[in-house]
Amino acid sequence: MNDAELLEKRRALLGPNVSTFYHRPIHIVRGEDVWLWDADGRRYLDGYNNVPHVGHCNPRVVEAIRAQSARLNVHSRYLHEHLVDYVQALTATFGGGLSNALITCTGSEANDIALRMAEAMTGKRGIIATDATYHGNTSLVSQLSASNPPAYGYGLGQYVRHVEAPDSLRIHDPQGQRFAAKVQEQIDDLERSGIGFAALIVCPLFLNEGFPNQAPGWLRPAEQVVRQAGGFLICDEVQSGFARSGSHFWAHQKQGVTPDVVTMGKPMGNGYPVAGLVTRPEVMARFRSSYRYFNTFGGNPVACAAAMAVLEEIGQRSLQANAARIGALAAQALGGLAAKYSVIGDVRQSGMVFGVEFLQDKTTLAPASGFADQVVEAMRERGVLLSRLGRHKNTLKIRPPMTFSEEHLGLLVQTLDDVLAELVPQP
Amino acid sequence: MNDAELLEKRRALLGPNVSTFYHRPIHIVRGEDVWLWDADGRRYLDGYNNVPHVGHCNPRVVEAIRAQSARLNVHSRYLHEHLVDYVQALTATFGGGLSNALITCTGSEANDIALRMAEAMTGKRGIIATDATYHGNTSLVSQLSASNPPAYGYGLGQYVRHVEAPDSLRIHDPQGQRFAAKVQEQIDDLERSGIGFAALIVCPLFLNEGFPNQAPGWLRPAEQVVRQAGGFLICDEVQSGFARSGSHFWAHQKQGVTPDVVTMGKPMGNGYPVAGLVTRPEVMARFRSSYRYFNTFGGNPVACAAAMAVLEEIGQRSLQANAARIGALAAQALGGLAAKYSVIGDVRQSGMVFGVEFLQDKTTLAPASGFADQVVEAMRERGVLLSRLGRHKNTLKIRPPMTFSEEHLGLLVQTLDDVLAELVPQP
Repeated sequence: MNDAELLEKRRALLGPNVSTFYHRPIHIVRGEDVWLWDADGRRYLDGYNNVPHVGHCNPRVVEAIRAQSARLNVHSRYLHEHLVDYVQALTATFGGGLSNALITCTGSEANDIALRMAEAMTGKRGIIATDATYHGNTSLVSQLSASNPPAYGYGLGQYVRHVEAPDSLRIHDPQGQRFAAKVQEQIDDLERSGIGFAALIVCPLFLNEGFPNQAPGWLRPAEQVVRQAGGFLICDEVQSGFARSGSHFWAHQKQGVTPDVVTMGKPMGNGYPVAGLVTRPEVMARFRSSYRYFNTFGGNPVACAAAMAVLEEIGQRSLQANAARIGALAAQALGGLAAKYSVIGDVRQSGMVFGVEFLQDKTTLAPASGFADQVVEAMRERGVLLSRLGRHKNTLKIRPPMTFSEEHLGLLVQTLDDVLAELVPQP
Repeated sequence: MNDAELLEKRRALLGPNVSTFYHRPIHIVRGEDVWLWDADGRRYLDGYNNVPHVGHCNPRVVEAIRAQSARLNVHSRYLHEHLVDYVQALTATFGGGLSNALITCTGSEANDIALRMAEAMTGKRGIIATDATYHGNTSLVSQLSASNPPAYGYGLGQYVRHVEAPDSLRIHDPQGQRFAAKVQEQIDDLERSGIGFAALIVCPLFLNEGFPNQAPGWLRPAEQVVRQAGGFLICDEVQSGFARSGSHFWAHQKQGVTPDVVTMGKPMGNGYPVAGLVTRPEVMARFRSSYRYFNTFGGNPVACAAAMAVLEEIGQRSLQANAARIGALAAQALGGLAAKYSVIGDVRQSGMVFGVEFLQDKTTLAPASGFADQVVEAMRERGVLLSRLGRHKNTLKIRPPMTFSEEHLGLLVQTLDDVLAELVPQP
């Protein structure tokens, strides 16, 4: 099937508006570590995908999936060691009394449960999120998206309030006090409205918001106002977790906060559909006693085998340290490009996630969103995959597999240099 | 780890109230076709599990998962043939204009979307389900459970109305007119309340309700009142689909109705977390245009490879015909037991799902729920796995993999005969 036929079949079978990446979508057929190949045999460096956390088609994960799929795959109403062994290994990476876990299939399911836990523990329903975030796709969770909000959804939008997303370039808030004050405003509004305040849900790195540069502990003032109001702090670590931040295994640890619930997803099984959450035993007990939650595929032996293999790879290959090292090198290299190209307004980096923010004008800070799009497309044409994010979609999102090396980084930065040289009008 | 340690670890790590099957939970370590083995090497005949639809550890499915996991596993924002090829094969099994599909990870996610589609198309929110059903675990979908209703859930319970579950033994309703009238009552109530009627959601075989014996076309009167009210008919075929009914590939076809949405799940990938729904293009277009639904793991190449292998196994091994043949033999054999044991009040069967309803008294029709529990436990002790369901939990739920043979059936029926001989007081 050629690409035109594939696109036509997608439209005919999946319906309209099913998103693809790039103006010329790529027909990917094979992956290995940080590399992807299209149907014409062309190779791409993957600077975008975090689902293949320990590399596309990681042999240890593939073998774990194969071996367990061939041996047994059933639900968790029978006893099986994989589930408890995995949850033990997973919860060992947390402090703060976060010793219980619930395994689902998707991060959306995990967030959907986390919000119910907040309601169960607080008796209230008001949820606060940033105005440039995304937390998933269930009826409840999809309401948290301020951009592209669902046109319907059983009236659940009434429970959501948005706060201005942090923006280290445009908003002076070095210690997070302003953000905390904005959260407080929404808490007050929710309490006044009678809905009441249940939870603040954030990605600790504010990844969809453009991962602003923040001092360690930046989220603490917000945590404090949440605590004072008797609400829940939910950290959505679907993107930020599993050592990506480099300095810590979980990004909330970098922020110095202790969430009530941490949700996780995408990288957890390196592509096998497994996700989940951790929380304190009393929260889990309240949720579990309110009704019998059961997830047929959640925590099945294959999911746990895949997830355990991911943990092992991170540990044995020191991928957290690799994220810290490559991230630091990336920040340095991107800083070099920033000195060379004035269209770069800021460099962002937190472990193995980095990028630059493009500006039309460094005085007005007007975002160069169209330019960012040109860069993403030009990089794709040159065989490097990345994307853009943030409220203005003017920040490059470079979030490769955790096995990304110095050599891979060199190729990415060189290609970006070439693209910028081509796209930026020469003086 | 011994079983006591495993149970203790589950409590400590997963929290309380995490359900297990049987008074003495089984520690399963291996599966093959219709067989399961526990940690002590004891073999069990699986008369319960429908997730391993084409047999535990089906070699074709395992190989499909292995091969594709080793080659590529990414989200659907790149082009890939597996997704469109699978959706084409899947939608080819439907009539009634149900030509579009959306692939998720769980049946819960599929039902969550189906309800939003109903809201989007009708502009209303009232959902009708039976009072003995289960449709999944999201905030919205979990509200449909009348037994064990969630103690909270963002007020979504207000949109749900329940109708009396069909019961071919106790309720005289040979053509479904009474059921349709009950649905009409709830439609009227929803319209009067201002909520309005959006959808009726049912399993076409009413499996959780105890799969009552019904004439073909039994659901048509209900479909008619739904249509007259301008609502949606959603058929949840998570259990009943993929040829289990024997006579048809989808159970709604047996019922002679044309749903607006059909949801599917458990058997779809033989244990790989894949689920989805099919609908008409105009419904999909409305949903897709309302916001950008995206499911990271949904429809990934491995999920589609696993699901395609399941379709191939059903077709090439004629498992639909097998379901019809074994089901008929099962009904006959269970009828033999009913003639022998007066505790059996009714025999139920629809393709590869069958069981008997136990009664304390054939005149009062008082359910023998405790007895059914004893039978389930005694069968487990003798190495045959099954369960019980229905509003009174007095009906055996025998719902084995579709590869269940005459020999397997013989063993199951003989064991049931032995158990009944032991448990029923001799005259």
